[in-house]
Amino acid sequence: LGTFTLQVLGTSSATPAFSRLPSAQVVNYNDRYYLIDCGEGTQMQFLRYGIRYARLDAIFISHLHGDHILGLPGMLASMSILERTEPLPIFAPRALKELLDTTFKLSESYIRYELVFHALEDFEPGQVIFETEKLQVTSIPLDHRTWCRGFLFREVHKRRKFNFHAAKQLEVPRECFHLLKLGNDITLADGREIKAEYVTYPPESPLSYAYCSDTRYNEELVPWIKEVSLLYHEATFTEGFAKRAAETYHSTARQAATVAQMADVRHLLLGHYSARYRDLTPLLDEARAVFPHVDLALEGRFYDLKALQGEPREETPIEEGEEATDV
Amino acid sequence: LGTFTLQVLGTSSATPAFSRLPSAQVVNYNDRYYLIDCGEGTQMQFLRYGIRYARLDAIFISHLHGDHILGLPGMLASMSILERTEPLPIFAPRALKELLDTTFKLSESYIRYELVFHALEDFEPGQVIFETEKLQVTSIPLDHRTWCRGFLFREVHKRRKFNFHAAKQLEVPRECFHLLKLGNDITLADGREIKAEYVTYPPESPLSYAYCSDTRYNEELVPWIKEVSLLYHEATFTEGFAKRAAETYHSTARQAATVAQMADVRHLLLGHYSARYRDLTPLLDEARAVFPHVDLALEGRFYDLKALQGEPREETPIEEGEEATDV
Repeated sequence: LGTFTLQVLGTSSATPAFSRLPSAQVVNYNDRYYLIDCGEGTQMQFLRYGIRYARLDAIFISHLHGDHILGLPGMLASMSILERTEPLPIFAPRALKELLDTTFKLSESYIRYELVFHALEDFEPGQVIFETEKLQVTSIPLDHRTWCRGFLFREVHKRRKFNFHAAKQLEVPRECFHLLKLGNDITLADGREIKAEYVTYPPESPLSYAYCSDTRYNEELVPWIKEVSLLYHEATFTEGFAKRAAETYHSTARQAATVAQMADVRHLLLGHYSARYRDLTPLLDEARAVFPHVDLALEGRFYDLKALQGEPREETPIEEGEEATDV
Repeated sequence: LGTFTLQVLGTSSATPAFSRLPSAQVVNYNDRYYLIDCGEGTQMQFLRYGIRYARLDAIFISHLHGDHILGLPGMLASMSILERTEPLPIFAPRALKELLDTTFKLSESYIRYELVFHALEDFEPGQVIFETEKLQVTSIPLDHRTWCRGFLFREVHKRRKFNFHAAKQLEVPRECFHLLKLGNDITLADGREIKAEYVTYPPESPLSYAYCSDTRYNEELVPWIKEVSLLYHEATFTEGFAKRAAETYHSTARQAATVAQMADVRHLLLGHYSARYRDLTPLLDEARAVFPHVDLALEGRFYDLKALQGEPREETPIEEGEEATDV
């Protein structure tokens, strides 16, 4: 069965504080690993949590503020020392390449695998920037004081799964299985019509993860993250610092929750905490008052998208295909 | 009383490994703090060990390999966020400035205090690059595959301390104390000659710390570090990897001990360990077989130069000044 989990490696904004490191997260989709942002210390976090970072499948960088990128040069160099050979795609604002090139040149670091650099500026928001057979990544426009994009990881339409039990009970000849699996309806030689949905399970609803850091409160974000399974939205401050949040183009926990509520997401994860909070409970409480399905992003912690999605919020009508499995 | 301690923050070479971080050390001399090298994660180490890094008095960078500098951009930016205002002297190979400038520009970091940059290339080895009333820092030529300098922190000649007890017993008039303190001999009105050394304690021998990383084995280093109180010498490999050490311009633990032995230093500290060693005992054992006064550099650990200096190795003749205190 497929996995779609998020592991949080860094939750601090601007400076590290109270053992919290700057932003970094790993998405694991079916045993492929994607790094989002790479604050200083990310390679140490990989070691700490036993993730083999030399095998990362792609890197996504939201913007160039130091707390989101300063772990990159060291991590990329270490991957070379650890003898990675496969090319590594990296999606980031264009200027990151100059920063990396300068750092590697002056520190005499030789990266022996190919860094395949893709400038985010070359993609429209919503345009697919990366895809595999079952996953698509698009970028989301955020509203920060520097050019910044979020990322949306979305499963592509899942196939219905074949129900051998139902096909056998309906005495469908084996030579018809293939066409039915592909979604075709068939009329058998005996005149019975076998619809594809009689012999397949309904597809699971596709899961999706939206990463939104850093951004100030902006309702224009809502349509981009509508109904995602999991939304990570920065929550640098509590509402008492709303003015400071607006000035620095950051959000309060309440604002993050408001956006989550408006977008009707399944679950919200807060993060990017200011160093002024040793205890993060006030941020969680403030968000929960607006939107109940919320957690704090905590370092090392896994978030399983399927589990967090929980029960459907509305009754879904029973589909014919489901009845068919009871034949 | 004066303090002269070293605290080790990072001991790993090239990549972090087994919870060991890349190179960084803090020298505390009489409550002034000097950072030597700044591998990735150094600011987190400061937080971890409760050192207020915003008050650092100067930074010394030996060379530009990533494991010695990649913590700098983040730490310098954090010091600005923590509202440091005093200028900060930094001594490093010239190209570091370009690396920092590029990183700060592209990551839109604004450093609000003055970074006073001194290029090490502008100083001859042995020339004083930094000094306070009681401490001098010079640079040491090392033999690495990139341009690299070590650093020597040396107390300047200590003053003799005034011995009130002796002065009183000798019935020296109070108005003469000042001249005697400054080292003058005096003939009193009653014809007695009072030598300065009669009423002062002999000065303690000045302490010194030599930081030598990275370097391959090179006997030309010996005169630069002759008889220092504490020598930190890299020991990336055990002797079994002597060929690899030579190729990469690094040293074995045995080579570090040999240099320490030849230079007749008081104490040796090993560090810059390869990620191939989980257990560091083989490095320590190998060095101890050559030179007994040796320790492993361990993260978070303090090394007190005065305490490590231990007992004098040779009998020192009793000076007249000491006899005078018994008058």
